[in-house]
Amino acid sequence: MNATSEPMIAAPESAGRRGRRGPRVKGALTQLPWGPLRNPVPPVEVLSLDHLETIRLTSLRLLAETGMEMHDPWARDVLKAAGCAVDHGTMRVRFDPAFIEAQIARAPSTFTLRARNPARSLTLGGNTVNFGSVVGPPYCSDLDRGRRSGTTEDVRNFVRLLQSLNTIHYLYGTPFEAMDLAPEVRHLQGYLNGIELTDKVWGSWMLGRFRAEDAIEMACLTFATDRDGLQRDPALIGNINTNSPLVLDAAMTHGARAFAECGQAVIVTPFTLAGAMAPATMAGALVGQNAEALATIALLQVVQPGMPCVYGSFASNVDMRTGAPAFGTPEYAKAAFASGQLARLQGLPWRSSNACAANVEDAQSAYESQMSIWSTVMSHCNLMIHGGGWLEGGLTASFEKLILDAEMLQMMVSMLQPIAVDEGALGLSTFAEVGPGGHFFGATDTFGRYEDAFYAPLVSDWSNFENWRDRGSLTASQRANGVWKKMLDEYEAPPIDPDLLRDLTGYVDRRKSEIRAGIGVE
Amino acid sequence: MNATSEPMIAAPESAGRRGRRGPRVKGALTQLPWGPLRNPVPPVEVLSLDHLETIRLTSLRLLAETGMEMHDPWARDVLKAAGCAVDHGTMRVRFDPAFIEAQIARAPSTFTLRARNPARSLTLGGNTVNFGSVVGPPYCSDLDRGRRSGTTEDVRNFVRLLQSLNTIHYLYGTPFEAMDLAPEVRHLQGYLNGIELTDKVWGSWMLGRFRAEDAIEMACLTFATDRDGLQRDPALIGNINTNSPLVLDAAMTHGARAFAECGQAVIVTPFTLAGAMAPATMAGALVGQNAEALATIALLQVVQPGMPCVYGSFASNVDMRTGAPAFGTPEYAKAAFASGQLARLQGLPWRSSNACAANVEDAQSAYESQMSIWSTVMSHCNLMIHGGGWLEGGLTASFEKLILDAEMLQMMVSMLQPIAVDEGALGLSTFAEVGPGGHFFGATDTFGRYEDAFYAPLVSDWSNFENWRDRGSLTASQRANGVWKKMLDEYEAPPIDPDLLRDLTGYVDRRKSEIRAGIGVE
Repeated sequence: MNATSEPMIAAPESAGRRGRRGPRVKGALTQLPWGPLRNPVPPVEVLSLDHLETIRLTSLRLLAETGMEMHDPWARDVLKAAGCAVDHGTMRVRFDPAFIEAQIARAPSTFTLRARNPARSLTLGGNTVNFGSVVGPPYCSDLDRGRRSGTTEDVRNFVRLLQSLNTIHYLYGTPFEAMDLAPEVRHLQGYLNGIELTDKVWGSWMLGRFRAEDAIEMACLTFATDRDGLQRDPALIGNINTNSPLVLDAAMTHGARAFAECGQAVIVTPFTLAGAMAPATMAGALVGQNAEALATIALLQVVQPGMPCVYGSFASNVDMRTGAPAFGTPEYAKAAFASGQLARLQGLPWRSSNACAANVEDAQSAYESQMSIWSTVMSHCNLMIHGGGWLEGGLTASFEKLILDAEMLQMMVSMLQPIAVDEGALGLSTFAEVGPGGHFFGATDTFGRYEDAFYAPLVSDWSNFENWRDRGSLTASQRANGVWKKMLDEYEAPPIDPDLLRDLTGYVDRRKSEIRAGIGVE
Repeated sequence: MNATSEPMIAAPESAGRRGRRGPRVKGALTQLPWGPLRNPVPPVEVLSLDHLETIRLTSLRLLAETGMEMHDPWARDVLKAAGCAVDHGTMRVRFDPAFIEAQIARAPSTFTLRARNPARSLTLGGNTVNFGSVVGPPYCSDLDRGRRSGTTEDVRNFVRLLQSLNTIHYLYGTPFEAMDLAPEVRHLQGYLNGIELTDKVWGSWMLGRFRAEDAIEMACLTFATDRDGLQRDPALIGNINTNSPLVLDAAMTHGARAFAECGQAVIVTPFTLAGAMAPATMAGALVGQNAEALATIALLQVVQPGMPCVYGSFASNVDMRTGAPAFGTPEYAKAAFASGQLARLQGLPWRSSNACAANVEDAQSAYESQMSIWSTVMSHCNLMIHGGGWLEGGLTASFEKLILDAEMLQMMVSMLQPIAVDEGALGLSTFAEVGPGGHFFGATDTFGRYEDAFYAPLVSDWSNFENWRDRGSLTASQRANGVWKKMLDEYEAPPIDPDLLRDLTGYVDRRKSEIRAGIGVE
């Protein structure tokens, strides 16, 4: 582990890194190897084809009749030039269904993003499943120091874990906000974190054009290419949200415009919480989601035909008594199944989330996350953002939850490996060798499979009650605390050309000065 | 709640039932209504038809070549008379594949069990899904008194909760052992608990003929019928386990024989832990499971052609480093999917479990249980035993875990309700009313859906961090503690004819005396 990460860790008992509080993890950490995941099981589908088409057609009617507010004049101009009905006074744009269908048909159903390490490239579409980190929380938390505003060093440690975790295929250089930095320069440090501390595909800020432009510039440096090269071989992906219902605001448009002009991938995610930003029905939330995603992707396809776009879904519901958003609910899972169907019907890669509403890494956090994970993976989400670390409805990035999520994601990866059915695995001769009432532990065949017969957990404790109690009665969350510390200890930075790092740091420093001076911040 | 349950509860602050420690739950408990569950989504299938058939054929070869040890001489006699190859010396029975197939074909693919309350009857088969309670643990636990040997009153309180929980469709009158009773009479009290405190279908002991016979006698009293009547309209179901690999012991055979002779339902569940009681492969565990289940069901079909039998599965794996059994693992989930396929292929209702290895109601307990619940429900388990309350690999029945499980099961029930797709739900006019950027909370349509638009949780806390913290930072497990106490407070015993209760109590008292005297204990 990089020594600069040490100051975040309280070390009351000793001066070294071993002085950290909390349980120690003995032995090496075991993880599944890095690898792209494909879900070989046909997707679970909860909507009939008839109902699916009804939802799609209703969303097209909604775009034709009510339309969408586009707050950025450029977007309205583009759509007006493309033949849409635009009212600049009300900012309302109404869309012809055939126009939407034609634009959506231009978007690729599968595309690949290059990573600094070619082995870490991502393919989105088809039955690929990729897991990403949490992004966005204003807080971070761990068992030692509780919930707090995070610093750059907290962020960098979290990013080191994201690099180390093989089940995280994609990450943000700032999984949570670094509150020691001014808001307008956090993205620069985040990109640097992503490039320096990891060799995976990293996500871009999309709020305002300048943040997207900085991502493009730093990607060009990283890949020693120019914008044309980046467009030919895209590396960047950023998420924009509509302001549901039916609004696309200016700041998000600016970020998306920069990416569209350079052919980098844009995820469009409506935030349709049924009962608040959508009708109090899941069909209504899906209609709103589909309308907002399609209209926004259509805009991007007009600007850059064939550019990679991702259909984002975040349909869930509120608690009708309090208005509180709820995640990992039965409605959330149902909407995830349906969203996968809508994305496939419309030929778009699909993005989902591992969301929960729990405030602490307890049973609720796990069962809500499992509702999210199972429903989205079984309906072939191509990119699960917030896959690791999300807590508290997205307001906190938790170090322990990251490890617990990694365990849950690993279990899905392992579960989706097909059951081997061959003569050895079927075991007829092993049964004959062992015989009725025997024990297979000593069988010849078992010996050969000893090392990797079954999934080895990261944090689960399978020991019996007495052993577990005698080791301190640690909960999964407490054990996860020991795991992330050990993983930080074992972190190895991926190799990076010192010249590149110098150039990137130079770029970041220069841009920080410019931004402080008010240059290039639109 | 029955006043006799009070002594188990420490009441330091006051004399009344309100004096219980732990969090109080405000307001009425909200539950989904009682109702049979059908899974409308096609089952998830992980094995190709080719591999599925290979596993089936290999299990038939295993029964033909290695065969099974049948420890009860009666069973060997029955099978010998039916044409099987029997060696009384080694107790080995070898089966012709055509014999097995012919017997299995006699078992019904669907059957119904009557409950004391006709509305609580259970149908097993097809896409029905029924959830049952934990059964078998030597310990019980709750947050107030920890893990301990349970008493009759502990058991009766747990059974009251099982009656109260609408998501529990089926239960055992002793979800855990009442250690204040002699082992040989616990079943009598358990049956009485099931009949008196609940009106649902209750499960029978199968260890030794006398326990099964007592269940039959008490069912005859309950339904005011005789054995012929019970056979025409079965009410009882009991689970027997094979001693994997490939052994059926005498005590289990005796219980199953009693049920077979009276046409009551028998679940046959091999316990094929890969790496211990089966080869260290999931294909091998499935081959073993299928062989043992089929041979045992074939025996029962010879005795009572057409009797209701259930294909049980419990395939999981051990930790190869320690030999510890593991549950809710990726292998467990994979085997569950495959077991559903095998059961359907062979035309048998299918039994599974909600199992976990965790020692405490933490995140691990929830994510392991969700692995079990999702995989078994999505592969159409007809009866999930251990659905509520299982902890610690089945060694403890936890009051808090029961509530957490009920929440997870309710979420599945809710998720499986189809998305309503009609004009009102699609919400086109509601979108028009609210318009871009508006809020749906005040919409006309929302008002009409306010009460039951979304799933209302039993124990999940969706409040924000500050409110959650100010209310005591309670974990899901701590909140579950409050829920089960409130549920006990609100428990209402189902009506029962006093004459029936007197007759049942008389039967139990008489049998206790007889058993103490060594009469009717074989």
